[in-house]
Amino acid sequence: MYRNQFIHQQIEGGVTAPQGFRAAGVAAGIKKNGNKDLAILVSDVPANAAGVFTTNKVKAAPLLVTMENLQGGKAQAVVVNAGNANACTGQQGLDNARATIGAVRQALNVEEAHVLVTSTGVIGVQLPMEKVLSGVGQAVKELSYHGGSEAAEAIMTTDTFPKELAITLELGDQKVTIGAMAKGSGMIHPNMATMLGFITTDAAISSDLLYSALRETTEKSFNMVSVDGDTSTNDMVVILANGLAGNKEITAKGDDYIKFKNALEEVCIVLAKAIARDGEGATKLVEIRVLNAPSDSDAIKAAKAIATSSLVKTAIFGSDANWGRIICAAGYSGADFDPNRVDIFLGDEKMAQDGCGLDFSEERAREILEQEVVVITVDLKIGEHKATAWGCDLTYDYVKINGAYRT
Amino acid sequence: MYRNQFIHQQIEGGVTAPQGFRAAGVAAGIKKNGNKDLAILVSDVPANAAGVFTTNKVKAAPLLVTMENLQGGKAQAVVVNAGNANACTGQQGLDNARATIGAVRQALNVEEAHVLVTSTGVIGVQLPMEKVLSGVGQAVKELSYHGGSEAAEAIMTTDTFPKELAITLELGDQKVTIGAMAKGSGMIHPNMATMLGFITTDAAISSDLLYSALRETTEKSFNMVSVDGDTSTNDMVVILANGLAGNKEITAKGDDYIKFKNALEEVCIVLAKAIARDGEGATKLVEIRVLNAPSDSDAIKAAKAIATSSLVKTAIFGSDANWGRIICAAGYSGADFDPNRVDIFLGDEKMAQDGCGLDFSEERAREILEQEVVVITVDLKIGEHKATAWGCDLTYDYVKINGAYRT
Repeated sequence: MYRNQFIHQQIEGGVTAPQGFRAAGVAAGIKKNGNKDLAILVSDVPANAAGVFTTNKVKAAPLLVTMENLQGGKAQAVVVNAGNANACTGQQGLDNARATIGAVRQALNVEEAHVLVTSTGVIGVQLPMEKVLSGVGQAVKELSYHGGSEAAEAIMTTDTFPKELAITLELGDQKVTIGAMAKGSGMIHPNMATMLGFITTDAAISSDLLYSALRETTEKSFNMVSVDGDTSTNDMVVILANGLAGNKEITAKGDDYIKFKNALEEVCIVLAKAIARDGEGATKLVEIRVLNAPSDSDAIKAAKAIATSSLVKTAIFGSDANWGRIICAAGYSGADFDPNRVDIFLGDEKMAQDGCGLDFSEERAREILEQEVVVITVDLKIGEHKATAWGCDLTYDYVKINGAYRT
Repeated sequence: MYRNQFIHQQIEGGVTAPQGFRAAGVAAGIKKNGNKDLAILVSDVPANAAGVFTTNKVKAAPLLVTMENLQGGKAQAVVVNAGNANACTGQQGLDNARATIGAVRQALNVEEAHVLVTSTGVIGVQLPMEKVLSGVGQAVKELSYHGGSEAAEAIMTTDTFPKELAITLELGDQKVTIGAMAKGSGMIHPNMATMLGFITTDAAISSDLLYSALRETTEKSFNMVSVDGDTSTNDMVVILANGLAGNKEITAKGDDYIKFKNALEEVCIVLAKAIARDGEGATKLVEIRVLNAPSDSDAIKAAKAIATSSLVKTAIFGSDANWGRIICAAGYSGADFDPNRVDIFLGDEKMAQDGCGLDFSEERAREILEQEVVVITVDLKIGEHKATAWGCDLTYDYVKINGAYRT
């Protein structure tokens, strides 16, 4: 996965790194290529749980069922299939989502309302339930306290690498662990939970604060990623906190909450960047930093518009230092700023000052653009707010992958 | 140009078809490839004039100067250069735009406030004024009552064909002509004047009503086109009405106004479709019809989101009948509708009913998608409002063209 500098200590194990979580990933035959396509994640005890979901008006059947089950703030198991989104599938889709939950409930002997279900893949085709149910049976048999990587692999669709990590932090005298896995790639855009993300922790924290921490961190991580401007019918991020670390339960927004939230934010940002880097067909990770905006909202709007612009993305693919497209995207973003004060940097090379082009070194600009990570900084110079968004370049392979996804 | 079924009678001549308009297009050396790159359009007499402009916060220098000059509601000449946008060029950019106007004023002996200037091309580079001024001199010499096509050719950037047309209508006993030319291709998106468009007419109509007719028709034509979701710093559409047809001046929103507006709408829609068809790298024109929406605004939002979706556009390029991406785009558009009532058609083939997929003929769907014009109909079935948007497919060539536009 994309290399990062970690603030917290990183450990192995992904979603099964925290105490009391088992996982498995199996090939149920839903994907045509025979790859792993069904994952189950389960906590030894019912966990406090929270989720954020797509804002798309068209919501997939499993999403609707999971949103309903999460209302109680508790969950113990999550079942995920890749290869079929179970979206735009009507009543039968809802019945199939519930049948999948039923199978998990029965095999694991957990409460039906504590099982979450999600699907990702092609839209508008009914789930092959025989394969799903047999896959559930097989996955339950293979559940393991070291199964995180298997699960991370099974939730992939057009992803080119599995995305998982785990970090530790101290809360009081207790070591607490947060583990996570995600899948991303196409159909990913801001204003959403943007993809599938599953986070586990053995921290003890109330459902309300868990939701609050997830909401806040999602805003600064998954919601700042754009691959192609499209937002999916199936996106969600859920977190399960089973309390087995034995820390004093976090029930207020004090020091422990801040520590936990900061750690969660690091996890989410690492995954968000990995998703951007693994955007369909992408060859580069692009980080857009907007500085000195009049408000957070202005900074976010400008950063997202630049990250989403097809013209900026193709220029980066072609290593063309076309900074005019960057200021242009900021200009139509709706962000408030003065075009005549904007400075633009590519890496540490200043391309424009006070809205006008500088004589920069084309050679140096090309060097920066040919790196695997391209950082663009836009200094609006009229306030004190900032935002960071992540995206990727737009390449021939994006067109290739998406020109024949379904058939 | 893209073939259309005309309601009004089509004639030759483009912007010089109406009485009293001359035009020229010359190669001033601004484009590296030596193609025509500077156009002048002039009316024999001062004309009533109106314009609509980009909503991008970053506005090019010539746009600012032209907006100022148009405040008087009169214009006699328009000068356009391609190859350089004169955007993000600061005070020198404004000085250069004014110097260009000055040269035209002097050569044609018209009022400075009656000259409009516009530029299109790369952002952030100062205009090569020696070339521009010498081009103005040459173009003035070549002005002709049959120069419409030369001008239409000179305003092209990445366009693959010139876009011009002229139609006639009757107002009272007088024959009135409307001529037009446009350039489009990349960086084109709804909510804007979206591209460069120049419309001439010999109709007599007040400036106020001219503006009103242009605003209304732009909403249903140029603002419904999307090539890549990016909105430019330079887009504008201007119209000059010199009154030489001798019709009774249109000064109220009566029958003549309606007739004129309908004709103008046809002109603008033909050009808008040509721009979509000629989207950078495009191989197909896509027409999105949203029917039975609860409001105009809902219909427009849904149609534009579908036309803009990179996933829909790549699927059409690949002739993949991935209707799930269509309903998904409607879902995140912000339009109000019930996902469980939506019907989706590809051409005349029904792909989905009440939000669920149907068993459609893959072969028939591929046949429809392989045509040069693909019509997608989305019936929301909850109201009586509709909208039509135009776009194109997203291809390898779009990436190629935009990966190395500047260098």
